[in-house]
Amino acid sequence: MNGADALLATLLANDVTACFANPGTSEMQFVAALDRQPAMRSVLCLFEGVATGAADGYGRIAEKPACTLLHLGPGYGNGVANLHNARRAHTPIVNVIGDHATYHRQYDAPLNSDIAALAAPNSVWVKSAERADAVAELAAEAVAASYGPPGGPASLILPADSAWTETSSSPVVVKKPARLAPPGSVIDAVAGALRAAAKPVVLIGGQACQAEGLAQAARLQAKDVTVMVDTFVARLPRGTGRFTPQRMPYFAEAALKALEGVDLMVLAGTTEPVAFFAYPDRPSLLMPSGCRAMRLASRTEDAVEALAALADAIAAPREGPSEPHVRTDMSPSGDLSPQSIGISIARHLPDGAIICDDGVTSSAGVAEQTTAAAPHDVLGLTGGAIGIGLPLAVGAAVAAPDRKVVALTGDGSAMYTVQALWTLAREDLDVTVVVFVNNSYRILNIEMARTGSGAAGPRAQRILDIGEPEIDWVSLAKSLGLPTISCQRAEHFESVFASAMKVRGPQLIAALVP
Amino acid sequence: MNGADALLATLLANDVTACFANPGTSEMQFVAALDRQPAMRSVLCLFEGVATGAADGYGRIAEKPACTLLHLGPGYGNGVANLHNARRAHTPIVNVIGDHATYHRQYDAPLNSDIAALAAPNSVWVKSAERADAVAELAAEAVAASYGPPGGPASLILPADSAWTETSSSPVVVKKPARLAPPGSVIDAVAGALRAAAKPVVLIGGQACQAEGLAQAARLQAKDVTVMVDTFVARLPRGTGRFTPQRMPYFAEAALKALEGVDLMVLAGTTEPVAFFAYPDRPSLLMPSGCRAMRLASRTEDAVEALAALADAIAAPREGPSEPHVRTDMSPSGDLSPQSIGISIARHLPDGAIICDDGVTSSAGVAEQTTAAAPHDVLGLTGGAIGIGLPLAVGAAVAAPDRKVVALTGDGSAMYTVQALWTLAREDLDVTVVVFVNNSYRILNIEMARTGSGAAGPRAQRILDIGEPEIDWVSLAKSLGLPTISCQRAEHFESVFASAMKVRGPQLIAALVP
Repeated sequence: MNGADALLATLLANDVTACFANPGTSEMQFVAALDRQPAMRSVLCLFEGVATGAADGYGRIAEKPACTLLHLGPGYGNGVANLHNARRAHTPIVNVIGDHATYHRQYDAPLNSDIAALAAPNSVWVKSAERADAVAELAAEAVAASYGPPGGPASLILPADSAWTETSSSPVVVKKPARLAPPGSVIDAVAGALRAAAKPVVLIGGQACQAEGLAQAARLQAKDVTVMVDTFVARLPRGTGRFTPQRMPYFAEAALKALEGVDLMVLAGTTEPVAFFAYPDRPSLLMPSGCRAMRLASRTEDAVEALAALADAIAAPREGPSEPHVRTDMSPSGDLSPQSIGISIARHLPDGAIICDDGVTSSAGVAEQTTAAAPHDVLGLTGGAIGIGLPLAVGAAVAAPDRKVVALTGDGSAMYTVQALWTLAREDLDVTVVVFVNNSYRILNIEMARTGSGAAGPRAQRILDIGEPEIDWVSLAKSLGLPTISCQRAEHFESVFASAMKVRGPQLIAALVP
Repeated sequence: MNGADALLATLLANDVTACFANPGTSEMQFVAALDRQPAMRSVLCLFEGVATGAADGYGRIAEKPACTLLHLGPGYGNGVANLHNARRAHTPIVNVIGDHATYHRQYDAPLNSDIAALAAPNSVWVKSAERADAVAELAAEAVAASYGPPGGPASLILPADSAWTETSSSPVVVKKPARLAPPGSVIDAVAGALRAAAKPVVLIGGQACQAEGLAQAARLQAKDVTVMVDTFVARLPRGTGRFTPQRMPYFAEAALKALEGVDLMVLAGTTEPVAFFAYPDRPSLLMPSGCRAMRLASRTEDAVEALAALADAIAAPREGPSEPHVRTDMSPSGDLSPQSIGISIARHLPDGAIICDDGVTSSAGVAEQTTAAAPHDVLGLTGGAIGIGLPLAVGAAVAAPDRKVVALTGDGSAMYTVQALWTLAREDLDVTVVVFVNNSYRILNIEMARTGSGAAGPRAQRILDIGEPEIDWVSLAKSLGLPTISCQRAEHFESVFASAMKVRGPQLIAALVP
């Protein structure tokens, strides 16, 4: 048994059973060991940002880490943007980053770089296994670190000689750490403040957004406490039978309008809401003046338990509001729009589906409609780095092969990690991709004015538009192995999407939205 | 004038006239300023790795920096792999990385991260312009730092408020720093050692590989001193009339065979040769035992001057060998191969062309043939991070619109930054892309055995092959706006390539090699 075997054995012993890989020479021992460890499912990605985003999608659904397999500093670098999102989602991930043999580093060969420094900003844990005998123990440490709480990407650097050297170390098993509920004194203090407040809001995020957390939050809503949810959540259960808290608006002025008169904001599993970007003469912190913030549960605590205890403390009813089953019989017609797409999705999304949302400007219109869909989970853009929708779908589908996955993505977003389409085809994943084709970085056309930059002149506009040349999404997706169709009318999308929900396997719908 | 204007004004005052951009909200002021500063050519890239690789290609050809425009940490992260290559190529680049407004950082909004830490490993200089008044001076510092010597990517972080705040600062101009020649005592010592050595080799790299450096190195060769060149060089003049030094072989055993009996290695513009990767029981340092290394010129010194002085000191003739004009009249036939492709390229490459080489296993066969091509420059894979060929071509073509650019790339390599095809089409760049389609990470099939990993079993093999599904390169390139053709026979490639060399504009040839 060499170090690579020891690594795989420890990962498997800790129930890490999926690997999203884009290896190079320094990772060949790991690749060879895959033949000896058939319990590890390996999924090849043609770009590392697909691998890291897939590991994020996998971790959000499986609630345990996948590993990535990355090639030294540059391979890790290509995965940074989606690891930024994963860090913000607190998704457990174990990055295995191959490195030169320990004794080879001193020669500064072309691929040499400071991997630990590069990995630090987006890792909750970084260590290098400098000896084969250290691999198993460090792999277990990485798994534990990835769980947190609150968890995130842990990065294990694996020098080539640590991988190829023999070792007799046994697999090391770690326990998933438990979250602690906040003390009763905190519950009592918050309950007292809630009773005293004129217009309290409870803002939930992170772990509080589990199905059980939502159910407990709904009890507060039933007691006339407004519940809101973070704008972007790693995993949010939605649809029929679920409680749909009001989403914190993306733009500061809309958020502050929604919070008008609020004098108490209770935070569960999240922190005080802040504007996504700063703008001249607009606030950063989304708190009305005079509003007091109180923490019910931090990101590391058990916010679900805390919400339950709070609901009990204020004598909330056992159940709160939930979405009724109001699916419309009317199929949408006319020009395609995010709203009409949302109606079609709401009508046909199967029970237990997963929506991976990287739709930027088009997603809000869809989300308005999908509260009426069958129960589903939405995986959101936690870190703001676009290009995560398709990779998330790869990982979610690997984690839950029996659930239909729908990826919603802008055309601009999809281009960052378009290589994911190939992996969807190769692995025959049950994913329907909807690309909102508007030939534009639409969000930037909106943001341009907001930043005080004025109207875009012709040279600026050329940086915001991506329609020259127009990307032919049907040819593009077909070239990477996906059945693909393009829709311009709501009726057409309705029938295409309905069919897609009835068959298994990957496909892409190019939705030409205005 | 705001900070963004001040930045553009200083960049332009320092002859930085091209910007490869993938901006977001925090960069909107810079984008708006492009309309007020029409001398800055801006090129939109749909992925940041294209922008950074293009800036590298631009800098290698223009011998001055382009700037990139990147969106906070994740945008920079997507550019890391090609900045790793640029760092190794010592290419001057100024990264402009947008950041949150200075006062907004404390709220840790979703896109917040430690940009300076992320940028440090691949930057020769990193600073943040914390005030609008500081922008001009720091931009000039960045330009100067990017030149070195030996130069590389400099990263200027531009907070949004530094961009939008008014400033009255004037453009700051810096001088391109000169390289100093090594002292006469070094020349004398090396000349003495050369005379005393039984089998000396001069290894050249970096700045020594300029056309004039090659001419001076040829003089040494004429005096029976074997001249070799680094395996990977940022920019290497080749073809008819140029001196072609022997290339340091990629694999250690081949390199040590080539160096058998060598007792002196003189280094000009480079360092001692090292193996690209370590392998069990193979050496890291490519120096025969008993061989002495002597530095003629470091990477920061003027190696061209040093080579000239050395040639004078050993009384070398005024001219050395150069490639004769031996272009074959026989057009290749039969199955397509790297060699037949090389013959076609050698026959038809126009004078002054630029070859961007990311061809991995196929490139060596091509390079054997192209010594007989018209004079051209080859931009090589300096840092080993594949996925640079297409972006390099974007940048080279922007830097030299009157030169034909040929991008040679593996199919695996091309997929990392396939978004570059769209920019080639949008900017109507005069680039012919040749993709070697072998449906495999061919190099890894070779490296697998070399690393002692044994033969690939079925699960490992699935990680090395990329042919399931087969990527349809014709549809893929067409979907991104490029005229495209696929070739399987040498005769067909010959006629297609010959035609491509005669017309202006981008196109792609999918070369199906076995």
